[in-house]
Amino acid sequence: MNVNGQPYRSIVRDGHSLLVIDQTVLPHTFRQLRLHSAEQVADAIRRMVVRGAPLIGVTAAYGLALALREDASDAGLQAASDALLATRPTAVNLRWALQQIQQHVAALPARERAAAALARADALAEEDVRSNAAIGEHGARLLRYRWELLGKPPVLNVLTHCNAGWLGCVDWGTALAALYQAHRQGLPLHVWIDETRPRNQGSSLTTWELQSHGIAATLITDNAGGYLMRQGQVDACIVGADRVTASGDVCNKVGTYLKALAAADNGIPFYVALPTSTIDWQIRDGQQHIEVEDRSGEEVTHIWGRDDDGQLRRVQLAPDGTRARNPAFDITPARLVTALVTEHGVVAAHEAGLATLRRPAQ
Amino acid sequence: MNVNGQPYRSIVRDGHSLLVIDQTVLPHTFRQLRLHSAEQVADAIRRMVVRGAPLIGVTAAYGLALALREDASDAGLQAASDALLATRPTAVNLRWALQQIQQHVAALPARERAAAALARADALAEEDVRSNAAIGEHGARLLRYRWELLGKPPVLNVLTHCNAGWLGCVDWGTALAALYQAHRQGLPLHVWIDETRPRNQGSSLTTWELQSHGIAATLITDNAGGYLMRQGQVDACIVGADRVTASGDVCNKVGTYLKALAAADNGIPFYVALPTSTIDWQIRDGQQHIEVEDRSGEEVTHIWGRDDDGQLRRVQLAPDGTRARNPAFDITPARLVTALVTEHGVVAAHEAGLATLRRPAQ
Repeated sequence: MNVNGQPYRSIVRDGHSLLVIDQTVLPHTFRQLRLHSAEQVADAIRRMVVRGAPLIGVTAAYGLALALREDASDAGLQAASDALLATRPTAVNLRWALQQIQQHVAALPARERAAAALARADALAEEDVRSNAAIGEHGARLLRYRWELLGKPPVLNVLTHCNAGWLGCVDWGTALAALYQAHRQGLPLHVWIDETRPRNQGSSLTTWELQSHGIAATLITDNAGGYLMRQGQVDACIVGADRVTASGDVCNKVGTYLKALAAADNGIPFYVALPTSTIDWQIRDGQQHIEVEDRSGEEVTHIWGRDDDGQLRRVQLAPDGTRARNPAFDITPARLVTALVTEHGVVAAHEAGLATLRRPAQ
Repeated sequence: MNVNGQPYRSIVRDGHSLLVIDQTVLPHTFRQLRLHSAEQVADAIRRMVVRGAPLIGVTAAYGLALALREDASDAGLQAASDALLATRPTAVNLRWALQQIQQHVAALPARERAAAALARADALAEEDVRSNAAIGEHGARLLRYRWELLGKPPVLNVLTHCNAGWLGCVDWGTALAALYQAHRQGLPLHVWIDETRPRNQGSSLTTWELQSHGIAATLITDNAGGYLMRQGQVDACIVGADRVTASGDVCNKVGTYLKALAAADNGIPFYVALPTSTIDWQIRDGQQHIEVEDRSGEEVTHIWGRDDDGQLRRVQLAPDGTRARNPAFDITPARLVTALVTEHGVVAAHEAGLATLRRPAQ
C-alpha cells in the first residue's frame, strides 16, 4: 500500500537481498533495512523488525533461501531451518513456511537448491498478496452493500481493532484489505481505530497505515467504541483473526469480544476477515479449546512512546509493586459474528457456512 | 482508608488550614499539602491536586470558609464563591457545596460567618463520609450475598472500572467503599482493576488505593475484562456513576457500557454504587439526554508516566498528525444494571425502583 503516495510492500526481494520496513521504529520513523543473510533475517524476526504471522513466514522462507546459498547440504538446510524456527517458536506460519521451502528443495541436488528456494519464497510472497487482495475484494463488497443499505450516506464509518493491515503481511492485510479495496473503489470511508491496549497496535500501526495511504481515520480508546455505536456513529466493524474454529468462534486480539457484543447490541454488522489458513478445523468451541497466551504484566504497567526530544522511551503507569494480568487474545463466539470474509468468499460464522470452504485435501 | 497501615482521609481540616493529598504526583509519590487560604484552595482545585466531584465540593466549601476569615462582607462572600466556582465550572458538586455555605451564612452578621462556614464545611465532609460508609455497607451486603450464592469460594473476584474510591471523596469512595467494607468484614476479595484509558485512573489511582489498604488486586487492560468473564474469573462487577437517570440509565466513565454488556452476556451481576445526589430526576433516557463531554484527543495520542529516572514525563503513542476522538463517558442502559447501591439502600435500576429513593422535597 502507499506511503507518501508511493506503493510499498513490507518485504521486497532485490536480487539476493531483502528490503524490509523496520517496524521497531514505526510509527514515528519510516525506514527500510536491507537483509543480506539468513543470520540477518533471523535477527530481524527475533527483534520484531518484521512482525505479523504471514510476514514472518515469508521472511523466514527468504531467510532459508539465503542460507542455502552458503550451505546447500542436507545438514545445512536443517540447521538453517532450525535456527530460523527458533526465532519465534510459537509462530505457526513460520513453521509452515520453512516446511514449504524444505519440502520443495529436499529432492533437488544441492547446487539447484538455493535458486529453487528463492523461487518458492517468491511464490509464497505472491500467494500472500493474491490471497489478501481477494479478502479485500470480498470485504469491500460487504462494505459497499452496507453503505447502499444505509442509503449511501456521505461517510461510511467502520470500526477496526488492532492491526490487521499490510504491515503484518506482504501487502494489503486482511481486515484493512477490505478498507483499502473499498477506498480504491471510491467508497467514502471513515475508520475508527481502537488503540488496542496493551501493545497499541491500533494507535501505532493502524493509524500509520491508514494515514500513509490517505484513508480518513480517527483514533479512539478501546473504551470508546461502545459509546460511538450507541450514538449511531459506527456503521460496521471489521477485524482480523488469529484463529477461527470449525464452528466460527473467533480468537483475535483481546478486546474483540467486547466490540462484538456492542455491535450486536446495536444492530451493527461485525465482520471478521481471515485467510482460510487461519481456520483450525480440529476444534469447535473456542472458549474451551483455545489456550490464550498470558503475556508479561509489564506491557500493562509500562508503555513505550516518543518523548519530547524524539527518543523512544518507556514510562511506568502504575505504582511500584502493581500486579498485572495480560491475556493477549479473547474468543468471540460465532453468534456475535455477522460474516467471515475469506479469500474464497464470504461465509456465515457457523459449521455449515465454514464447511463450504473446506477442501477435500484438508 | 489506610496508607501503609495508617488511616487517611483525602482532606482533613487542621485548625484554619487543610491537609490534602497531592493527587498530581500519585501513584508514584504520596505526599500531603497544607492549604492556608482560599487562593491556595482554588489553585489546588484548578491544578487537580484534589479531584473527584465530592472532594472538590468539600474542598471548595472549606475554601469559602477560609475566604470569609479575610473578608466576610456580602461582596467578599460573593467574590470568593465566584472565584472558587470558576476553577472547575462544570462541576455540579462544586456549585452545590458553595451554595450550601452561602445559604448557611447569608443571614448571619459578618463576624459570625467564618466560624459558621467552617462548621458547615466540617458537616459537609462528615456527611460525605457517612453517606459513603453507608453505600459501602449496602454494597458489601450484596457482595457477601453473591459470595454465599456461589458456595463461599476461597476468593470472590470483583471487577471495577475507573476510580470510584476514597481519593475522590473524603473517605471510603462509592464502588470501592463496598470493597473496603467487605474487606473489613473479612470477605476474601480479589479485585480486577480496569486501567481505564485514556486517563488511567484505574492503573494509577485504584491500584494505589487498594494496594495501600491491603486488598488483593490485579491490574488489567480495559480489553481484558470480557475474556476474564468468559473464563469464569469474574464473580461480580461494581462501578461508580457520574449521573443516573430517573429510569436507571447510568452515565459513567467511558468503557462502563462494554463491561456491563459482557457481564450480562455471562450472567454476572453488574452493580452501580452512587450517592442519591447523583440521580438526575429530570431525565429518563440517558443516551438521548445526557450530553457527553468530548475531551482533548491528546489524552489518547499521548500519555504521562514515570520514566526510569523517576521523572514524570509525557510520551507520544500515535504518529504525528493523528486525529483522535475522546468521549469521556458512556451511558449504560438500565437493562444491563443488576442493582443500584445508594446510601439509603439497594434498589432496582428502573423507574419504580428509583422512585422509592425519591423524597418529597425533591
